[in-house]
Amino acid sequence: MFGYNRGQPTVTAATAAGYDASSDLTATLTRAARESALIVLATPAPTIDNLLAAIVEHAPACPLTDVVSVKQQVAAHVRAHGLSRNFVGGHPMAGSADSGWQATDPGLFTGAVWVVATDDGADPAVWRIVAQLALDAGSRVIPAASDEHDRAVAGVSHLPHLTASVTAVVGAGEGELALRLAAGSFRDGTRVAGTAPDSQRAMLEANSTALLNALSEAIDRLTYARDQLRDEGTVEVLVADGFRARKHYEQIHSVTDEPSTTAEPGTDGWEAALRNEARKGAVWRGANPEAQTRSASPG
Amino acid sequence: MFGYNRGQPTVTAATAAGYDASSDLTATLTRAARESALIVLATPAPTIDNLLAAIVEHAPACPLTDVVSVKQQVAAHVRAHGLSRNFVGGHPMAGSADSGWQATDPGLFTGAVWVVATDDGADPAVWRIVAQLALDAGSRVIPAASDEHDRAVAGVSHLPHLTASVTAVVGAGEGELALRLAAGSFRDGTRVAGTAPDSQRAMLEANSTALLNALSEAIDRLTYARDQLRDEGTVEVLVADGFRARKHYEQIHSVTDEPSTTAEPGTDGWEAALRNEARKGAVWRGANPEAQTRSASPG
Repeated sequence: MFGYNRGQPTVTAATAAGYDASSDLTATLTRAARESALIVLATPAPTIDNLLAAIVEHAPACPLTDVVSVKQQVAAHVRAHGLSRNFVGGHPMAGSADSGWQATDPGLFTGAVWVVATDDGADPAVWRIVAQLALDAGSRVIPAASDEHDRAVAGVSHLPHLTASVTAVVGAGEGELALRLAAGSFRDGTRVAGTAPDSQRAMLEANSTALLNALSEAIDRLTYARDQLRDEGTVEVLVADGFRARKHYEQIHSVTDEPSTTAEPGTDGWEAALRNEARKGAVWRGANPEAQTRSASPG
Repeated sequence: MFGYNRGQPTVTAATAAGYDASSDLTATLTRAARESALIVLATPAPTIDNLLAAIVEHAPACPLTDVVSVKQQVAAHVRAHGLSRNFVGGHPMAGSADSGWQATDPGLFTGAVWVVATDDGADPAVWRIVAQLALDAGSRVIPAASDEHDRAVAGVSHLPHLTASVTAVVGAGEGELALRLAAGSFRDGTRVAGTAPDSQRAMLEANSTALLNALSEAIDRLTYARDQLRDEGTVEVLVADGFRARKHYEQIHSVTDEPSTTAEPGTDGWEAALRNEARKGAVWRGANPEAQTRSASPG
């Protein structure tokens, strides 16, 4: 494993810790091309375009993935640079409000969901390499189409940043005494508002269409709750709906024995088949011996 | 210490654990009157009125407090029953989404903020008894006026329930795949939506005026963010404001050496003096020997 990082302090710290890291982009890409290495784009969305231009120049044949949180926009950039045939996007659903080398957490990916983009026409060989990276990191691989992924994370990841921010702002607006009274509901409900603003903006603004829809729905539901509170003195509907939704989430995350997908990358219609299995709760756990035998036989 | 609880299973469990508990309200109040015990109202807001009627009948002279999360409404009920002279409200800012005996946490109050209502005309003797209960529980006593408390908790405690609920509802509306992708931001941001709906409603609806203001401000800010995202492609303002507010909260909660209040309950204008000191960051830590000497001297 080796890595490129523009930040000199991070590279110094990583090298000191025994990692094979470099801040020389050209040298890193030249070496990747020589070793046919998997290139992982792991920088904020606005920086991806420059990196892709360098890849076209120095390592145009390497398998390519990313860990950016919005999949359609990255795929569009990759397409614009003519690199689509080597590319399968990815998104590990893990992170913290902190950044930099000192925020390193060796267990970050263990048990986390890692979405591997499973769009029609994906190269099954690249798909397997990318999915294997996620498995090697200890994650659970969930195949999903890029557009489906982006709508999903707008709701469960990007909107929560904006609701956390507005909760923090209104609470802080009540003054310092109010902030001293803030307990668990405020602490947990505003945590992600403490993420570096540039990182939040890069993530949210890259998914603006899906986020606009989620945000509009949130505003509509809060407005209904306000009207109900003003006119009937109750917040019954929003509280009941929220409770049901949270319990549904808890129930889904209590599943510990997810089935394995059975569709095999490269077989006819494998992309849709994997997506359908994932939608029903399955994860990809690597090559399926039975299916491999089947796809190797004639017919 | 002894306690009344309407729930028979809780009383049975508490008695089995060695606590002096009873489900007989009349017997409990008669005993409280005999022992001049501090009565602590610790049930949801809608049940308070019936309890106060029983107190008027069986223990009208006992010092009285409560741990309900809205202070003005409870004070109004107490006033309606003619019990104001014995009453100093309280609110420990601690809790969890769980309820019942099995949710008992012996460390729940340790280090927590416990607001002791410090309204003009409060009986300083009752105030001391109530504040001492909070200190005995290991909490930090913050004196505040009832109305100031209610506005503050609308922002930092009640609004977070509604933003957590709407975040849960919109995320769950994206389907089961989306809920599987939900990670830390969704888990933490929706936690309090899992509180029993009846408990949430009792708390939020009792503070409807202040909550309406906080909710309207949240809607206005989210609407501004949506317009900015649609028209300019950015969420810059809300993300920047939210980051600043969260950091302000973290900075306030990093203070570990709060000064002690110096105003002494019972001296001239002690209520406003304590409130002002608390607003500047102080906590009440019990009788101040110097001030006691001062107030005991003629003048």
